[in-house]
This record gives sequence, structure tokens and C-alpha cells, in this order.
Amino acid sequence: MAGPSGIITLLTDFGLSDAYVGAVKGAVLAIAPRVTLVDITHQVPPQNIRHGAYLLGQSWHTFPPGTVHLAVVDPGVGTARRGLAFHVGGHYLVGPDNGLFTCALFPDLLPRNPALHPFAPFIAAMPDACEAVVLDKPSYWRHPVSSTFHARDVFGPVAARLASGIPLSALGTPTSDLTTLYIPRAVNDHSTVWGLVLHVDVFGNLLTNIPAGLVAARNVRVEVAGRTIYGLSSTYGAATGLAAVVSSNGHLEIALPKGSAARELGVVAGEPITVQLA
Amino acid sequence: MAGPSGIITLLTDFGLSDAYVGAVKGAVLAIAPRVTLVDITHQVPPQNIRHGAYLLGQSWHTFPPGTVHLAVVDPGVGTARRGLAFHVGGHYLVGPDNGLFTCALFPDLLPRNPALHPFAPFIAAMPDACEAVVLDKPSYWRHPVSSTFHARDVFGPVAARLASGIPLSALGTPTSDLTTLYIPRAVNDHSTVWGLVLHVDVFGNLLTNIPAGLVAARNVRVEVAGRTIYGLSSTYGAATGLAAVVSSNGHLEIALPKGSAARELGVVAGEPITVQLA
Amino acid sequence: MAGPSGIITLLTDFGLSDAYVGAVKGAVLAIAPRVTLVDITHQVPPQNIRHGAYLLGQSWHTFPPGTVHLAVVDPGVGTARRGLAFHVGGHYLVGPDNGLFTCALFPDLLPRNPALHPFAPFIAAMPDACEAVVLDKPSYWRHPVSSTFHARDVFGPVAARLASGIPLSALGTPTSDLTTLYIPRAVNDHSTVWGLVLHVDVFGNLLTNIPAGLVAARNVRVEVAGRTIYGLSSTYGAATGLAAVVSSNGHLEIALPKGSAARELGVVAGEPITVQLA
Repeated sequence: MAGPSGIITLLTDFGLSDAYVGAVKGAVLAIAPRVTLVDITHQVPPQNIRHGAYLLGQSWHTFPPGTVHLAVVDPGVGTARRGLAFHVGGHYLVGPDNGLFTCALFPDLLPRNPALHPFAPFIAAMPDACEAVVLDKPSYWRHPVSSTFHARDVFGPVAARLASGIPLSALGTPTSDLTTLYIPRAVNDHSTVWGLVLHVDVFGNLLTNIPAGLVAARNVRVEVAGRTIYGLSSTYGAATGLAAVVSSNGHLEIALPKGSAARELGVVAGEPITVQLA
Repeated sequence: MAGPSGIITLLTDFGLSDAYVGAVKGAVLAIAPRVTLVDITHQVPPQNIRHGAYLLGQSWHTFPPGTVHLAVVDPGVGTARRGLAFHVGGHYLVGPDNGLFTCALFPDLLPRNPALHPFAPFIAAMPDACEAVVLDKPSYWRHPVSSTFHARDVFGPVAARLASGIPLSALGTPTSDLTTLYIPRAVNDHSTVWGLVLHVDVFGNLLTNIPAGLVAARNVRVEVAGRTIYGLSSTYGAATGLAAVVSSNGHLEIALPKGSAARELGVVAGEPITVQLA
Repeated sequence: MAGPSGIITLLTDFGLSDAYVGAVKGAVLAIAPRVTLVDITHQVPPQNIRHGAYLLGQSWHTFPPGTVHLAVVDPGVGTARRGLAFHVGGHYLVGPDNGLFTCALFPDLLPRNPALHPFAPFIAAMPDACEAVVLDKPSYWRHPVSSTFHARDVFGPVAARLASGIPLSALGTPTSDLTTLYIPRAVNDHSTVWGLVLHVDVFGNLLTNIPAGLVAARNVRVEVAGRTIYGLSSTYGAATGLAAVVSSNGHLEIALPKGSAARELGVVAGEPITVQLA
């Protein structure tokens, strides 16, 4: 198990206009005053677990091993939903059991399952290499525990304990299942790839689940929302009009340089994308 | 007097789109390069002292003792308004003398005073447990001192000095009064509580001055803006429609899950709320 | 050459709603886990190099010597545009060669050149006191290098190396020219100053290139967008209506207290301003 890096990242839907993020950071620093706090984002659309899961999946792995990732998009706060902490790939993850850790825990995404709608939650078995506990040791929390602010009172303090070297196993009871969002991987045959828009970024770029390896160096025809894009552009700078590029995470991305592909196409997360390989 | 924690929090109305916050942080780090800087928020509505005072009051106490809280919402910058630094409850506060520290210094809020409008400023005596100085020692500032940017040139450097262990008494001349906003506490008799909306958060939740202890475990009827809410919900998740919950700071909160209570009710800070106790 | 301060500032147009900034910070901390990261802003309008150049110029000098300033507004990412690192005035600068460092490298701005439009890019000689290298040593980068995210894969890692004490000369090949924006200094005769709005801040204040020394303590008449302002106000608080003040960076600023001068005047960066000296 990696020793702590002394770094805690934060990802929430709290916004930056209130003092909620500040209160969480204070609660963390009251336990671990020397820790380095790094904001991933606090502008996940309110209660949009899928959106948060994607952003966490895009960023956690760039941090050094031993980093603690505190993620709270938590519409079920105060209800019976569980709080979890994970140790996986040398990193720690802390937050509610609602699917928020799907992309971090399943980086290859999930095999096709026609019984599920994209992004629907279901109960999955814990990945093999992942150790996880249900947070049920109140002695490690901040008291009194509010029923509406577990980021400050439960998850923040637990993240601070992990960053201070308290072992995961001390913080809760082992569990072997978790809530997961059905975020499917792309499927393909020799001539076609069927994928999905997983995320629309703030520039209106469409980030997909189609690995660049399936389409790069190929004479491709991308079909999305009734429009067809011919070929891949090597950079944003090289593109004119709606373009297919390789994203910074190695997947197919649809972009409109100096514009918003999402607005141009009227597309949101979940939109199907088909790539014809010539 | 608590030794410094090495942490400085920042709360301003500077926004995040300009370089003003960065310039303040640079000025702080030029004096105290190892300090940990934590943003509470920089999105206080421009010059809204009351709003800033509430957010500071919600967050400062979660930080460890010895933390310095730098707060600058300062419509009077460059005029004769005083700059102050406080030591209270083991923490330090630094900023303009315009009421911004009201909630931090008077956590129980103020007794009823029919002569004052809610949120009106007045001159109050310093609370007993609070030591305060007027910032009048330019040798601790950054020079030249701009007439429009005391956060960078006066308050930031003073916060950095406190975080570096310079004693409060060295930084200015003791004072025994300060500008305070009239933020009243709720009043009640055996059947009714009269309170006020103190703050509307970014989700449109209404945060009030009514302690949960006055209304919890009671069969309450909440009246606000011509609408009536029956009973308290234990969590956001348990509520449907407009709901009264216990906020994360232990007060009555009016929320509209998946919506904005403020917009639904057309309510801003200052709105009266009445609770009938059955 | 100044030793590293252990501080890295960041200025980008990535916004705060995605995980891009977080991914850059992770990549930096993976190399230099103990560094202090400070956001200048991430809300430069997309691809607005001029805007970013101004904000960097306003903030970098407040930091202690040895600080590394990572700035990425990079419409040409993935094309042939060069990446650069500079050592100047005891600080380090890292980012794309597109004019983003103009205000930092030329604090006195540029002499009049009627052949250029304001803000147009051109190739300039490196300032005398500035040492610079072209980033061409991939061994110091993060791999694989994305063609669309050099902040994470090239500039962030290079900034982390500099903050770790790797010398500038190790990171690339010396160069003696760079892309610069034509940001002209004000010109004057004994009765008139001709200047320009360089930047409109988030409050709608107009920041100009007219040094306060040219106009302060003078009976001035400011002409901008068909309006005339008589005299300088000493502070925002002292002004009523459209006002000319001395900005926090020692230049003429046009402000509308409790309003937006930019909206009132319909003005953007580049607008001429004339000051008549009585």
C-alpha cells in the first residue's frame, strides 16, 4: 500500500460562490494541517454524478501515488446511501457510494450490457485490485455530524486521516460491492465502431468512449447527430469546421475550433457516435 | 495567544477572472513563502459586505487554531475607513472595518434592537474575548501602497506577518470598537419563533438565523413569503417540494430539492420567517 | 540565477468547470510533490492571448524571486509553434511562444510603431536581461505527449523541473527571439497624452497604458468614447459617476463605481484614450 503523498484532491458540485468548499478544507486542515489541497473542480453540475465520475476519471491518475481523491456529488446525503473509501492503483478515493468512482475504478469502462441504459446505476462487484471499506467508524469524523454536509463532517475528515497515514482498514468495514454507473466501452467490428459521447466539456467539445487506437491512422468517416465528418485532424489548429481529433486522453473527440461542437450539433452526453473505417 | 498554523484563508469579492487574487497571493508569499493559502470564496457579490460576513462566519471556525483569515470586501478602500486585525478564539482576522467580521466576532448574533434595520452598520464595542488593533504601521505593508488595492498592499502583507509569527500588537494600535452589521438573532416565545433569512446560497437555499434547537423535534409550521411548510425533513433526499431542513450549521434552512427555494419564493436575504410550534 | 522559491503560478484559459487544470496540477505534483501551486486565473477568455498577457503582467512580480509562472493560452497547441521557458528578473516563465509573455518581458511596453496594429503579433529580439530556451528536450516531459494538451504534458512538467532546481539551460536550446504582441506605451507632448485601453476587468473597469505619473496632480480632461471626464478621483469611494482614478498598477483607470465603465461606454480593449493636460 502506497504511503500518503501528502496531497488531497477535491471534486464537488458545491460551486465556488459559497463557503462550503472552504469549510471542507478547514475540516481537513484541522486534522492534517500540512496537507496540499488541490481542486479538481467544484463546478460539477448540481447532483450530476455521471459528470463528476468522468472528470475524476480524467484527472486522478496524473497525481503521484499515495494521493487521496475526495469526491462529493451526493444527492443522497443524509439518507442510507453508504460512504466508501478505496485503495486502488496506489491512490485513495473517498466519497459517497453512488457511482461517482466508476471511471476511476473501471478505466477500461464496462462491457456491453443491453439490459442497461447508458449511465444507469447498478450494483457491481468491486474490481480485483481494489480494496474498499464502508465508512462506519464515527470516531474518525467531525462532530456533530450534519445530515446535509458529509463532505465537511465525514468524507473530508476521512480523507485527512488517510493523508495522515491512518490505514484504510481502520476507517471502516470491508465491502466487496459498490454502486456503479453503466458507462459502456465502445464496440467494433472490422468496418465500424459504435460509441457514445461521455462528456461535453466547457468549450463544447464532445469527449467519447472510442479509443484513438481503433480509429487513428485510418480513413474514417464519423457520424454524429446526422452530420458526417471525414478524416481525423491532427490538432485543433489544423481543423476548420467540425472536426474529429484525438483527445488529450487518447480517445476520439469532436470539436469545433472557435466554437462549440455541442451547440452546433445540439448534442449532450449519451449521444451515439458511429465511425466507419474505410 | 495561539501560535500561527501556517494557514491563511482568503475571502473577497474580486472574482476569479482577473489577476487580483493572484497578486494578493504573490504579495503574501513574498513575505511568507511557506504559508498554505486556502480560498474561502472570491465570488462575494461586489461590495456586498453582509454576504461576505455570513460566508466568513460559516467557515472560519472549521480551520485549526492559529489560522489567519484575510477578508476583503471593501467599498471604502482608500477612504478614511480603518483597517483592522483581530485575535479571537485562537484565530486571526484581517480586513477593513466595515462589518465584514460581524458573524465571526458575534457567532450568537445580536440581541433585538428595534431601532436598527437588519444588516445596517453601527459602531459596537469589541467583544470581550477579542483583541484588536487598527492597522497603522506602514512598515509592515507593501510599498508603494495603492489607494485602490489594500488587499495586496496592506491586508495581505499584514496577514503574512501574523502567519509568520509577528504579534498582533506589533501591527497596530489597540482599539475597543468596530463597525458591526446589525444581524439579529431570532426571538421566540413558547409558541412562535420570529427569524430572518440571513443568506441565499448558490443553490437557492435559504439559510436563516433560527437555531435548530428551537424547532427540531417539534411539529412545526414554517411561514415564509406567503407560503406554509409543514414539518421538518431530515435530509434533502427525504423532501419533496419546498422543505424545511436543519442546515449544516445547525439552523433552519428552506430548500427546494432539484430547484431553487429563493427563486420559487422570490425571496432575498432579510426576508422574515415565522415558525409556529404546535 | 535565483534558486527556486518552491512556488508555481498557473494562468490558463481552461476554465474551472472541467478537470483540465486538475490534470495539469497532478502532472506537476507527480514531479515536484512539495511545490506550492497558486492560480492566477483560469478564466482568460478562450484563446485570448492579449488578455492573458495583461493579467500575467499584473501579477507575476508580486511573487518572490525564484517563482515559476506557467501560462498557457495556446490556440496553436500541437502545431509548429514553439514552447519556451524564460529566466528574467529572478523569475521563470513557461509556455507557448505566441505573445503571452509580452507584458511580463516588456513591463514598459513597446515604443510607438505605426506599422503595427495594437495587439498584433510580431517577432522581437529577446530583452537583454532575459535568458530563454526553446523546449526541445522530451526527456523532461510527460509521456505520451498529447497533441492537444501541452499544459499537462510539456509545460507543466517543465515548470515542475524548474521548481525542482533543474537549470533552465538543461530544458532546451537557447533562443534570441520570441513572438511578441505589439502593446504600445502611451505617447505624450506637453499638453496631451495619447493612450489605449489595454484591459477591461471583470468589474468593467478600463485599465490603460497611461502612467499615473504623466497625469497625476494635474488638472486633466480625459476623453474616451466620446465622453469627457474632468479631473482624477483619489479613490473609488470619492467618485460619483464615470471617474478617472489611479489604478492599483499605477496607471490611469476609468471606473464607474457601482457600475461597469465598459458597458456604460461600449468600450473594449484597444479603445483610444486621450488626456488633455491643463
